Amino acid sequence: MKENHKVDGMSNEGKNVRRIFLEIAYDGTCYHGFAFQDNEKTIEGTIIDAIEQLTGEKTEVIGASRTDTGVHAYCNVVVFDTGSSIPPERFSNALNTKLPADIRITKSFEVSSDFHPRKRKTEKTYEYRIMNTDIEIPTDRLYTYHCSYRLDEKMMNEAAQYLIGEHDFSSFCSAGAQALSHVRTIKDASVERKGSLVIIRVRGNGFLYNMVRIIAGTLMDVGRGKIAPEDVITIIEKRDRSVAGPTAPPQGLFLVNSTFDMD
Amino acid sequence: MKENHKVDGMSNEGKNVRRIFLEIAYDGTCYHGFAFQDNEKTIEGTIIDAIEQLTGEKTEVIGASRTDTGVHAYCNVVVFDTGSSIPPERFSNALNTKLPADIRITKSFEVSSDFHPRKRKTEKTYEYRIMNTDIEIPTDRLYTYHCSYRLDEKMMNEAAQYLIGEHDFSSFCSAGAQALSHVRTIKDASVERKGSLVIIRVRGNGFLYNMVRIIAGTLMDVGRGKIAPEDVITIIEKRDRSVAGPTAPPQGLFLVNSTFDMD
Repeated sequence: MKENHKVDGMSNEGKNVRRIFLEIAYDGTCYHGFAFQDNEKTIEGTIIDAIEQLTGEKTEVIGASRTDTGVHAYCNVVVFDTGSSIPPERFSNALNTKLPADIRITKSFEVSSDFHPRKRKTEKTYEYRIMNTDIEIPTDRLYTYHCSYRLDEKMMNEAAQYLIGEHDFSSFCSAGAQALSHVRTIKDASVERKGSLVIIRVRGNGFLYNMVRIIAGTLMDVGRGKIAPEDVITIIEKRDRSVAGPTAPPQGLFLVNSTFDMD
Repeated sequence: MKENHKVDGMSNEGKNVRRIFLEIAYDGTCYHGFAFQDNEKTIEGTIIDAIEQLTGEKTEVIGASRTDTGVHAYCNVVVFDTGSSIPPERFSNALNTKLPADIRITKSFEVSSDFHPRKRKTEKTYEYRIMNTDIEIPTDRLYTYHCSYRLDEKMMNEAAQYLIGEHDFSSFCSAGAQALSHVRTIKDASVERKGSLVIIRVRGNGFLYNMVRIIAGTLMDVGRGKIAPEDVITIIEKRDRSVAGPTAPPQGLFLVNSTFDMD
């Protein structure tokens, strides 16, 4: 796809080409995930189209986090190169006039021409939001997972502490993952309740395919009393996807923060 | 429409007919309002269809609050009569299997055969939710109104206090309203901020057509500094729709509570 975009793209040769960083919030409900796919409506594809509408340039973008179908974000990131004379800070508002209401650029600025969001030292924070009520509330259904079993958030929080640190997270990685290493560092993990809403929050230097959703499924098993908090230790040690809990559904998952080493 | 439903309906004669009270939560995004309309997708119409699927009875329902297109509810109410032998408390779960995910019956029970939710003494609480950020956050767009002007919630709350009491609210009533009297009693009104979210809350014995949305539009004029809090006194006194603020858009409005004199 990248080559395709390059071949079709207008040449930027001779122009003052700049790399622009876009911070993006989106509602993933109606998208086939973040990453570009031919013939599917994706977040990346929609942003590529908006850039072309704005600048006339067929471009490629490099995304930071390839969120799945139905997953939401306050703060994903893409960078792209442009020969346009639009001031970097103006791209956010200008692109928002071309984008549908379920994608918004919240910030834009210029970065160095070698800035690659997946090759920089990074920290990402995800939240998994669970609405813990007897009956699902319709206005929460697109942005939380509904769980009618009463969850014990204190037990879940206890279990979450065992995830912190550098571990091989193979037990928390779906088949089909492309990562060469399954070692990641979780810097912080917590579970808190705000009324009927139970929020799982994890911060780390990167996450494997479906990792946060499998963590959420496993912590919900703890919250329902199916397994004990300390069982998480064994689950990590076994490095076997089949011993962890189910992959929780996508609509509860939000990428809430992404930071990069900008130097 | 009522007569039509009666004519088409199966006869309940000879059966043990009971009146069932349903408490309903819904996401109004995809509906043409609450009240039944031929050839339009409405909350009432969808509930009537679900009752027919469940019981085989073509019935009519009596709704409590005729919310507009795009307005949401945690707690609207309908009653209907049925000869079905389904225990009253089971209707909620049974109807939920027939309803789309954007409508949920949260409670069901039997009431006296003369119970009419618009003729009982009642108290309703509405919230109008405003997301006060520079750029609209996509995952909030269906359930809040986005306002990019920084709102002063303290001034708005001061203005809201002048609404409390029994008043002729003609200034806060859209043309096309069917109410004979424009006198209503607001028992409580407040505005609070939770981070970027500004919540207007009003509780009263009934509300005129678009009344809460015009209150919200007027209080936002106060929050932006276009008018002063005490201007609300004059706006009420003039009994003239044209002196109040604009009708705020529907998606920020939630019917959050309805109580009835059940004796």
